[in-house]
Amino acid sequence: MPRQVTAFSNATVKQLRSLRDKKGRRSEGMFLAEGLRIVAEARDSGRLPEIVAFSPEGAKHPLAAEIIAATEAAGGDAVETTPDILSKMSGKDNPQMLLGAYRVPETALSAIDRAKAPLWIVAQALRDPGNIGTILRTGDAVGAGGLILIDDSADPYSVEAVRASMGAIFTQQVAQARWPEFVAWLRSGEGQLVGTSLRASVDYRLATYEPPTFILVGNEAHGLPEAYEDECDVRVKIPMLGKADSLNAAMATAVMGYEVLRHRLPAHEHGASGGHASPAPSAPTSNRPG
Amino acid sequence: MPRQVTAFSNATVKQLRSLRDKKGRRSEGMFLAEGLRIVAEARDSGRLPEIVAFSPEGAKHPLAAEIIAATEAAGGDAVETTPDILSKMSGKDNPQMLLGAYRVPETALSAIDRAKAPLWIVAQALRDPGNIGTILRTGDAVGAGGLILIDDSADPYSVEAVRASMGAIFTQQVAQARWPEFVAWLRSGEGQLVGTSLRASVDYRLATYEPPTFILVGNEAHGLPEAYEDECDVRVKIPMLGKADSLNAAMATAVMGYEVLRHRLPAHEHGASGGHASPAPSAPTSNRPG
Repeated sequence: MPRQVTAFSNATVKQLRSLRDKKGRRSEGMFLAEGLRIVAEARDSGRLPEIVAFSPEGAKHPLAAEIIAATEAAGGDAVETTPDILSKMSGKDNPQMLLGAYRVPETALSAIDRAKAPLWIVAQALRDPGNIGTILRTGDAVGAGGLILIDDSADPYSVEAVRASMGAIFTQQVAQARWPEFVAWLRSGEGQLVGTSLRASVDYRLATYEPPTFILVGNEAHGLPEAYEDECDVRVKIPMLGKADSLNAAMATAVMGYEVLRHRLPAHEHGASGGHASPAPSAPTSNRPG
Repeated sequence: MPRQVTAFSNATVKQLRSLRDKKGRRSEGMFLAEGLRIVAEARDSGRLPEIVAFSPEGAKHPLAAEIIAATEAAGGDAVETTPDILSKMSGKDNPQMLLGAYRVPETALSAIDRAKAPLWIVAQALRDPGNIGTILRTGDAVGAGGLILIDDSADPYSVEAVRASMGAIFTQQVAQARWPEFVAWLRSGEGQLVGTSLRASVDYRLATYEPPTFILVGNEAHGLPEAYEDECDVRVKIPMLGKADSLNAAMATAVMGYEVLRHRLPAHEHGASGGHASPAPSAPTSNRPG
């Protein structure tokens, strides 16, 4: 049976509250995911929270009730509390009616099995947790295995990153490493490092991508350091027709991710080539190789 | 000569400060752009501020000095002030050393000349001003003429949207309209309306895009209403390999924008097809048709 907690001074309330801050996440080794949708996505990916907290209203949803029961059955902690206390935990005036606290997985490079997926995203010194979440979500869409964060990066387990990931924080493996460590690891096995660069002369549509492909994305403000570009096996250019000379880091990831996917999973050519909802076959959406 | 303003109670300070709020922008008919980089982008696009405010430090940069002089020469107002007052105007602890206030351009649909560009972005009920800015920036990169905002949308002239646009707010035309008004306008001339939909059966890579192409993007949380999808001339599906069933609205815009661009401006096929920085010709970056 869930515990009832109504005191702001309760130890679990304080513990969950602390997960909004990087320091708290580090000392607890846990992070927060807010809302039934993302907690259900996590469950579908085989992840249950260590602690699930919810309002009486939140527990009424059949899916929520299922997750609460499963969490308890797995030895986790289920806490029924007030909307006010949930609001304190999430830091929002209008909080979700359910949230979960999850163990932060291993983020060492050595935990990555590169053969598991044909594509990996590598991002250098991202500053914006929302960008990290969006890149995770894009990685999920294009069938990437995960995201490798290079150098000093915003925290992928911050509430903002988890929220923007729309559940992809649970489907994408996350690793963190310094650049020399990453290069040593990369070169210890197969893998093609692909960077986007304004200095590149190869159009991104003409390059050949060999799995496992590692797409390297630079910091939002400064792009990739020159030495990092030099390390790339392939440097490609995304054409820019406008006045600005760069795409948002997450946009560049989406364009490159779908380009690599295009080479791997061509659209079926049989059927009408476009036009008014003609009965062309749909593109494969789940036959993930490797 | 610039005026010196050191009082928080100064009328111009109050006026600029009011532009952080939608109400203030509406009553003044102006919006704020912060920082030398974006103000310089605006100038390069032929736009000077009505009012430019800067710190003594900010005025030292040669480009800033040039823009301040040009603003005054064009009859605008140049205001030298303190970092504290700039901070109040921008609402940031660490403010830029220069900011400009610009007249909001005409946003009626009738102001759009669709023949001016082969591509236009149409977005429905976007909630996040950062997304609007990112979509503007993407539109700039793919050579779109502008962004048409449908129904109730976050304000494209908010400080967050302008900041995320990285200057594209000055290169992209912006219009706002209700859906029936937009459809009537669209059907009064040439134009292909393309929507992304999970219900679609045509892979986005197989459709035929006819200029002017209008890419329709749905609200972040709910996607496109069914009736809006039904109005589309072509409905396409972007394959999703992962667990989540959608891409961020700005990501979908980037993927579709580059797909339309691919049909319009194929990469040069002569030269090596990718690989290690071989001397393939770069893709065209400025020969914008139309």
